[in-house]
Amino acid sequence: MQRYFANISPQETIVLPKDPAHHLVKVMRAKIGTEIELVLADHCVYRAVLTETAPEVKLQITKRLTINSELPVSVVLACGIPKTKEKPELIVQKATEMGADKIVFFDAARSISHWQENKRERKITRLQKIAKSAAEQSHRNKVPEIKYCDNLDQLLDRYQTTKRVVAWEESAKQGETSALSQQFQRLRTGDSILAIFGPEGGLTSEEVMKMNSAGVISVGLGPRILRTETAPLYFMAAISYATELL
Amino acid sequence: MQRYFANISPQETIVLPKDPAHHLVKVMRAKIGTEIELVLADHCVYRAVLTETAPEVKLQITKRLTINSELPVSVVLACGIPKTKEKPELIVQKATEMGADKIVFFDAARSISHWQENKRERKITRLQKIAKSAAEQSHRNKVPEIKYCDNLDQLLDRYQTTKRVVAWEESAKQGETSALSQQFQRLRTGDSILAIFGPEGGLTSEEVMKMNSAGVISVGLGPRILRTETAPLYFMAAISYATELL
Repeated sequence: MQRYFANISPQETIVLPKDPAHHLVKVMRAKIGTEIELVLADHCVYRAVLTETAPEVKLQITKRLTINSELPVSVVLACGIPKTKEKPELIVQKATEMGADKIVFFDAARSISHWQENKRERKITRLQKIAKSAAEQSHRNKVPEIKYCDNLDQLLDRYQTTKRVVAWEESAKQGETSALSQQFQRLRTGDSILAIFGPEGGLTSEEVMKMNSAGVISVGLGPRILRTETAPLYFMAAISYATELL
Repeated sequence: MQRYFANISPQETIVLPKDPAHHLVKVMRAKIGTEIELVLADHCVYRAVLTETAPEVKLQITKRLTINSELPVSVVLACGIPKTKEKPELIVQKATEMGADKIVFFDAARSISHWQENKRERKITRLQKIAKSAAEQSHRNKVPEIKYCDNLDQLLDRYQTTKRVVAWEESAKQGETSALSQQFQRLRTGDSILAIFGPEGGLTSEEVMKMNSAGVISVGLGPRILRTETAPLYFMAAISYATELL
């Protein structure tokens, strides 16, 4: 069933905002009587039936569903800005499907691309749109927020989550294999976790030392070298497996 | 350190094949004395030093390394042929980074694209090339093999692995959360596992029934709906986490 997000508080009759209204009536060609699912401002899912298509697209809420497809913990992914435009898009789309709560791009020491101030908002808006459509498609109850940080200090200052980890390939090289699962096993429902990933060139040892001093735990993601866009997706799948399927 | 695959049995002096030779000398501009890592036909990693660049690119093996970055189990991923050209490429690249042993594309009931016989070899050659370069980049000991099956019957017949699972979203909808971890927990080092994924429209219930009759276990991959190219990547990360980090 088609699912849309509408930032509207729950009420009997919903006037669908412009974008989902266009999609439902023009793209999907839905007729009066069509049933859809709506996620309203309370992050709950409602069954709704299409009652008017013009001049406004109106729906009648018929039922509040108890579906919750959110991870039991809130994951904040922080990625050093990658080189290409495609990589942030892939990260956002896939991490949304796998349940991320926030996705932050930060200007890391080895980031080759920088998000200039005049283009930043446009980039974030575009990524936010990708997140919304992936959230609808994967039947999330929440659209992840896309954020930006000027540097590592700002990132560490802003995201004081319950646990904080950094994917550090030197950990893997030293044969460390249990730090990630130790952190996952200590998570409780409702906790939050910040997971930090470097850009293509990796993190510098200064960055990792600074993180470690701030209480961020270094974790390995296995013996293979993962690309900058693959590591956060590995992490998302692993935390879903550890907290939802194990 | 740069890593190349060369399907040559171990010997003191290696004449590098054309493609890696070109990459090392022309693209990377390596000079005599440069050290690289070579994975030879025995899937072992060797340290080698460049001794000649013309007319042939020759290397001297200096050391056999004991690095092994392969998963403890052999994973055969089988994906219903997806609609676009990009999705098989993404699956092959990412699944190679995460340790897949074989990646099979099969013509599923709901596959919209079909790999016509006259184009099949070219497609597989291209995907095999992507696998090789991802294997080098991620420091694998092995390049995954890319395969094709005409249909589900052929797939089930050819891949008689120790365990066989199918990602089935109805399992997830019914709140099933433990089948995947049960299968993972029963795996022993050296075992093989076939994991089957549907194309965009999903698998038909007939296909799933046929698989179940053949002993393939249905497993859910969590409460969110994953795209056809995301599900196999989720699986790869989960099996790595379960068998390498837990």
